[in-house]
Amino acid sequence: MPNFQTPLSFISDNCAGASSEVMQALLSCNSGSANPYGSDDLTMGIETKLAELFEHEVSVFLVSTGTAANSICLATLSPPWGSVYCHAQSHINNDECAAPEFFSQGAKLVSVPGIAAKIDAQELAAAVSRRVGDIHSTQPGCVSITQATELGTLYTVSEIAEIGEVCQSANIGLHMDGSRFANAVATLGCSPAQMTWKAGVKALSFGASKNGVLGAEAIVLFDQSLAQEIAFRRKRAGHLTSKMRFLSAQMDAYLKDDLWLANAHQSNLMAQRLSEGLGRHELIEILEPPQANILFCRFPLWLTQRLLDQGCSFLHDRWEEGVVRLVTSFATTDFEVDLFLQRVQAALNEA
Amino acid sequence: MPNFQTPLSFISDNCAGASSEVMQALLSCNSGSANPYGSDDLTMGIETKLAELFEHEVSVFLVSTGTAANSICLATLSPPWGSVYCHAQSHINNDECAAPEFFSQGAKLVSVPGIAAKIDAQELAAAVSRRVGDIHSTQPGCVSITQATELGTLYTVSEIAEIGEVCQSANIGLHMDGSRFANAVATLGCSPAQMTWKAGVKALSFGASKNGVLGAEAIVLFDQSLAQEIAFRRKRAGHLTSKMRFLSAQMDAYLKDDLWLANAHQSNLMAQRLSEGLGRHELIEILEPPQANILFCRFPLWLTQRLLDQGCSFLHDRWEEGVVRLVTSFATTDFEVDLFLQRVQAALNEA
Amino acid sequence: MPNFQTPLSFISDNCAGASSEVMQALLSCNSGSANPYGSDDLTMGIETKLAELFEHEVSVFLVSTGTAANSICLATLSPPWGSVYCHAQSHINNDECAAPEFFSQGAKLVSVPGIAAKIDAQELAAAVSRRVGDIHSTQPGCVSITQATELGTLYTVSEIAEIGEVCQSANIGLHMDGSRFANAVATLGCSPAQMTWKAGVKALSFGASKNGVLGAEAIVLFDQSLAQEIAFRRKRAGHLTSKMRFLSAQMDAYLKDDLWLANAHQSNLMAQRLSEGLGRHELIEILEPPQANILFCRFPLWLTQRLLDQGCSFLHDRWEEGVVRLVTSFATTDFEVDLFLQRVQAALNEA
Amino acid sequence: MPNFQTPLSFISDNCAGASSEVMQALLSCNSGSANPYGSDDLTMGIETKLAELFEHEVSVFLVSTGTAANSICLATLSPPWGSVYCHAQSHINNDECAAPEFFSQGAKLVSVPGIAAKIDAQELAAAVSRRVGDIHSTQPGCVSITQATELGTLYTVSEIAEIGEVCQSANIGLHMDGSRFANAVATLGCSPAQMTWKAGVKALSFGASKNGVLGAEAIVLFDQSLAQEIAFRRKRAGHLTSKMRFLSAQMDAYLKDDLWLANAHQSNLMAQRLSEGLGRHELIEILEPPQANILFCRFPLWLTQRLLDQGCSFLHDRWEEGVVRLVTSFATTDFEVDLFLQRVQAALNEA
Repeated sequence: MPNFQTPLSFISDNCAGASSEVMQALLSCNSGSANPYGSDDLTMGIETKLAELFEHEVSVFLVSTGTAANSICLATLSPPWGSVYCHAQSHINNDECAAPEFFSQGAKLVSVPGIAAKIDAQELAAAVSRRVGDIHSTQPGCVSITQATELGTLYTVSEIAEIGEVCQSANIGLHMDGSRFANAVATLGCSPAQMTWKAGVKALSFGASKNGVLGAEAIVLFDQSLAQEIAFRRKRAGHLTSKMRFLSAQMDAYLKDDLWLANAHQSNLMAQRLSEGLGRHELIEILEPPQANILFCRFPLWLTQRLLDQGCSFLHDRWEEGVVRLVTSFATTDFEVDLFLQRVQAALNEA
Repeated sequence: MPNFQTPLSFISDNCAGASSEVMQALLSCNSGSANPYGSDDLTMGIETKLAELFEHEVSVFLVSTGTAANSICLATLSPPWGSVYCHAQSHINNDECAAPEFFSQGAKLVSVPGIAAKIDAQELAAAVSRRVGDIHSTQPGCVSITQATELGTLYTVSEIAEIGEVCQSANIGLHMDGSRFANAVATLGCSPAQMTWKAGVKALSFGASKNGVLGAEAIVLFDQSLAQEIAFRRKRAGHLTSKMRFLSAQMDAYLKDDLWLANAHQSNLMAQRLSEGLGRHELIEILEPPQANILFCRFPLWLTQRLLDQGCSFLHDRWEEGVVRLVTSFATTDFEVDLFLQRVQAALNEA
Repeated sequence: MPNFQTPLSFISDNCAGASSEVMQALLSCNSGSANPYGSDDLTMGIETKLAELFEHEVSVFLVSTGTAANSICLATLSPPWGSVYCHAQSHINNDECAAPEFFSQGAKLVSVPGIAAKIDAQELAAAVSRRVGDIHSTQPGCVSITQATELGTLYTVSEIAEIGEVCQSANIGLHMDGSRFANAVATLGCSPAQMTWKAGVKALSFGASKNGVLGAEAIVLFDQSLAQEIAFRRKRAGHLTSKMRFLSAQMDAYLKDDLWLANAHQSNLMAQRLSEGLGRHELIEILEPPQANILFCRFPLWLTQRLLDQGCSFLHDRWEEGVVRLVTSFATTDFEVDLFLQRVQAALNEA
Repeated sequence: MPNFQTPLSFISDNCAGASSEVMQALLSCNSGSANPYGSDDLTMGIETKLAELFEHEVSVFLVSTGTAANSICLATLSPPWGSVYCHAQSHINNDECAAPEFFSQGAKLVSVPGIAAKIDAQELAAAVSRRVGDIHSTQPGCVSITQATELGTLYTVSEIAEIGEVCQSANIGLHMDGSRFANAVATLGCSPAQMTWKAGVKALSFGASKNGVLGAEAIVLFDQSLAQEIAFRRKRAGHLTSKMRFLSAQMDAYLKDDLWLANAHQSNLMAQRLSEGLGRHELIEILEPPQANILFCRFPLWLTQRLLDQGCSFLHDRWEEGVVRLVTSFATTDFEVDLFLQRVQAALNEA
C-alpha cells in the first residue's frame, strides 16, 4: 500500500477543491477590464444559461455562500412577522447561526415534522393553518425545503409538488435550499424544471460550491417580481461582489457541458460505492440508503477510533453516539473509497 | 493608431482583473482536500503574515467584499444606539446602500466635516462631545476614516493620530476603511503599523480586491477582544466561506514579496502620469493633486462627450457638472495612459 | 336569578380594569407639572421602593407592556447570535409574534422540555452545553422562565435556584417573565428576593397590568451593569414614555400597602374556588391543580357550547379539543364564580 | 408676590398633566370587564370618530408614544433600503435615538434643507431624483414632515400639498409627525382633512400626549392597505396594549366636544402672550414668531441665569449660545405667563 500522505477525508464536500474546468475559466476571464458589480458580459450571460437549463425565465443573483443565498431568499419571501417552515434538521435551522433570523429582522423558523429530514406535506398543511390571523403569533411566511437533504435523502418530484400545493393554498412562497441540487437531479433523473418551478418552487439557492467551484451560489428566482428586492438585500449584505466576473466564470464553467451533473454523478457514485462496501459488514449499520453524496451509518466506537487514528477523517458522534457521517465529493476517487474500505476491513479482521 | 479593441477604461480599479501571481496561487492551492471554514493551513498562516506586516498581534477575518468588511467592523465597534462618525463623502455613507445601518441594527452615520473628504479632528472632537448621555440621541459609537479617501486624497500619519486621540478621549474605537490601503502606504512611505495601530486604529478593512486579487478583503483587528464577536457577525452575514483556502490563497499571494505594494505603486504612478499629462492643458482643471490612484478633474462637456464617443469610459457629471473621475489600477499601463492622453490632445487640437 | 348583563368573563386577567387605589393615584399625580421622561420625583421613588421590596439594589425601567419588558430584557441579556432558552409553551415563544427575535436582531428561541410548562434543569444543563464554540450554531445567550407559567403552574424556589445554577455555570443570564409574579408569590409564600436574585435571576419583568393597574410593567435589574443598555433599548423601542409619572403612579399604588399581593391573593382564591366547584363533577376533569389564577380543565363539548350560549366567555379548544382555560383576576368576585358554577351545575343536571 | 411653590416650567408640553375630562373618562371606563388587545367597544369606536374628524375612511392604531407612532409608520412606508426624507431639525432625526432606523432595519434618514425647520418642496424634488435605481444607494422610501415643527413653525396647507405632489411623482408615501397636530390646526384654521389626506398625507402620527392626555397617540392611516403590516409591527414592538380601553378612553375624551382643539387654542394663546410680552424688551430677540406653542428667543446670558436661579425652568443654550426655548401647554395659565413676564421685567429693571 502506498504511503498515502493526504488523510482520507470524508468530512464534507466542502473539503474538495474546484474542477479544473472551473480553474481554467477563472484564468480565461482574467484578461482585460470588465464592468464591475455584475454589469459585465459574462455575468449577464449566466441568466440566459440558467433560463435555458430551467426552461423558464429567471432572475439570477450570484453570491459567495449558501448561507447568503438562503437568508436573502427567506428574508424576501417572508415578512419579519412570518413563520419560515422548515425541517428541524435543516441547515437553515441548525447550521447558519440564525442568519435567516438576522436577515429577515426576526422571522421565526418553525419546525415541521417528517421522516428522513423531509417535511411531511400533511404536517405542513396543518402548520400553515395554525393561528392564521392571530396578531400574537407569527403568520405563514414561506416554506424552505432542502434538496438533497442534510441526511442525504431526496424529496421525490411529487413530494415537492405536494408541498408546493400547500404553499399555493396558503399563499406563501416555496424556497429550495439546493446546496446539493445537482446531486438530487443526478439521482432522480428528472429535469431541473420538474424539481423546481413545475413543482411550485419560487426561489432556489442553486449550489455550486460543494460540487466543484471555489465559492459561488446562484439565487434563481422563478418569480421575477422579487428581483428588485433581492438586489437590494444582496447589496446591503455585502454580497454584491465588485469583480463579479470571477463568480460568473465559475458558474459559467459549472454549467458548461453539464459539468455540474457530471460532478454530481461522480460524487453520488462514490457514496454508493462506500455504502455497498460498508454494508457487507455485520457490525456496520447503514442508517439510510444514500440517495446523494452523504452516507449516515453506525460504527462500533472502537472502529471509529481506529480509523481516526489511521488518519481518516469524518464527522462522528455528533448526532448520536456511534453515528458516523461520510460525505463524498466530485473529487473523491475509487482509489480513496477502496482504500477506506480496506482499512475498515482490516480493522474488523483484527477485532 | 492601432484599432484598440478594449475600450480605455478608467471607471474603477474594480474593472481590472487579478495579478498573475494571485491566479497562480489559486491554481496551486487547489490540489487535495482542505479543512473548510478557515481551519485550513493556508488561512491560519494569513494571521501570522499580517501580524508580521503590521508588527502587532492581530485577528484576521477574510470576507469577499469591502462592504462586508466595513459593516461587520462598524456593527462590532458601535452599539445599535451609537453614532458612527464619518465624512459625508465616505463610501460607507454614500455607496453601501445603508449596509452599516443594517448590520448594526440601526446605528446612525453622522457626518463630520473636513476638506478633501477627510474628517477634521477638531470637528470630530466637537461632534463626539455633543449630547453625550442624552437618552434621546445616539451616543458616540465609533469613527470610520477612509485611507485613501474616495477623492484620492490621503490622511497624513499625524492626522490619523490626531483622530485617534479624539477617539481615545471619547473612549470609542477607530475604524479604517482601507479599500485602497496599499495606495496610501505606497504614497506616504510609512509602515502599515504607523498608519494604523500606532495612530490609534482598532479595526482595519484591509482591501485587496481593488488592487490585484479576485475578491478578498481582510478584517484586521488590533484589538483582539473583538474577535469572537466579529466571528459570529461574519458567519451570520453569510461571509464565512466554506472553501476559505481560496480567499486565503489570494491574500497570501497578495502579501508575498510585497505584491500589494508593487501593485499600488504602479496604480499610483499611472494616476500621476495622467495628472501630469492632463494638467498641461489649459481647458482642463485638476481638482485635487492625486495622492493615490484617483484623479478628479474638470473637462469641458464636449471633451467628455468626445472621449466617450471614442470608447473611453470613466465616471463623469455625477458629482457636479463637468467633473470627471479617472481611476487607475495595478493593471493600467503606460500605453493605455498615453493613448488616452493622445486622444485628449487630438480632441483639443480639433476644437 | 338576576338578569346579569355583563357576561361572565374568564377569558383573561387582561379583561379586568384597574384597582380603585390605582385610579386614585392617577388622579392625585395629575396636578401640576412634572419633569418628563422619568426624571420626575414619583418615578425616581419607584426604584427605592422596589429595592426595598426585593431587598437588593435594583435598576428599574417602566414600560407599558409585558412584551416590551421581556423583549428588552432578552435583547440585553443575549447577543444576536445567542440562544434564548425557554419552554415551548412560554409566552415569549408563542404569543409575542417574534418580538424577542425583532428586538434582539435575530437571536434564536430554543425550547427546553419540562412538565407543566416548566423548564427542566437537567434538560437545560444539556441544552446549554450543546455546540458551544461552534461558529455555525447560536451560542448560549440567556434563559427565560415564566413565573407563574402560562399553565398556571409554579416553579418552586429551589427549582428556580437549580436553573440559576445552570445559568451561572454556563455564564449566561437568567430572566424571569413575571407577568403573574404576584400570583406566584401569593401562593408560594416566599419573599420576592427568594424567588429572584437569591435564586439567580438577573432581570425580571415585574408584571402589574394583569393584576390591577391600567398598563405598567417594570423591568427590574438585579445586575445594574445592564442599566445603560436597557435605557437605550427602551428609548429606541418607543417605550420611554414622556409623561412617565402616570406609569409610576400606577406602580406606586400597586406597591403601596402590598396591593399587588392582596390583588393576587384574591385572584388565586377565585381560581381555587372555581377548581373546587368544578372538580366535584365527574364529567369535568381538572387538568392541573391551579397554583395561580389560571385553571385548565376538560369539559364535554356540549357543556362548553351551553355555557358560551349563555354568555359566559373563556378560551377553549385552542390547545386541544375539549380543553378549556379559565382565568380569574383581582376583580373576580365570589358572586361571579358561584354564578358560573351554578350554570355548570344546571347544565349538567339537564343533561 | 405669592410664594409660588411649583417652579414656572416652560420646559416642554410633556411636563403638563392631563385634562380633567380625560381623567374622568379613565375612571368611567374602568368598570366591568372588557375584551383585551383592542377588541373592546371603546377602541372600536375610535376608528369611527377619527374617520368623522378626518372625513375619510381610516385605520387607527393606538400606541403610547410618538416615537412608536413615527417609527412604526416609517418602517411601513419605507423599505429597509429606503431613504426617509426629513428635515435635519426633525424629531425623528434628532430626538428618537435612531428608533426609526431600528424599526426599519436600517433605512437612512436623509436631510432635506428648508427654512424654519420645514422641508423645501424644490429641494425635496431634487433629493428624490438623486441616484434612483443605483444599487449602491438607498432609494426613495418616504417623506416625513412635522406639523407643527420642532421650531413651532407651520407648513401652510399648500406647502404640504406641494410636498405631497413630489411624493406622488416619486411614488413614495408621505408621513406627518403630528405630535402637535392640534396646535397646527388651531392656528391654521383649516380642517384636519385639508392638512392631511387632501394634501397627500398617507400616514399620520396624531399626537395627544403633549396636549392633554396621559400617554396616547394614534397612528391614522389614510391608505388602509398598510393596516395589516402596521398591526404586526405594533405588536412586535410591544405596543399592542392588553387593556387597550385605557388608551382608547383617553383618545375618546380627547376627541369629544373638540377638547383637542380647545386645549391647543389655550396652549397657542399662551405662547402668543409670552411672545408679545417678551417682544417688548429690546434686549430680547424673538427668533421666530410663534405659530404654535413653542417660542424660540434669544436672552442675554445673565437673564437666563437669573430666571433659572428664581426657579423658572426651560431649555436654553442647547441649540446655540443665548437661545432659549419656551414651550406652553394646555395647562399653562395667564397667571403663570404673567408671573414669568414680571420676573423678566424685574430682572431687566435691575440690570
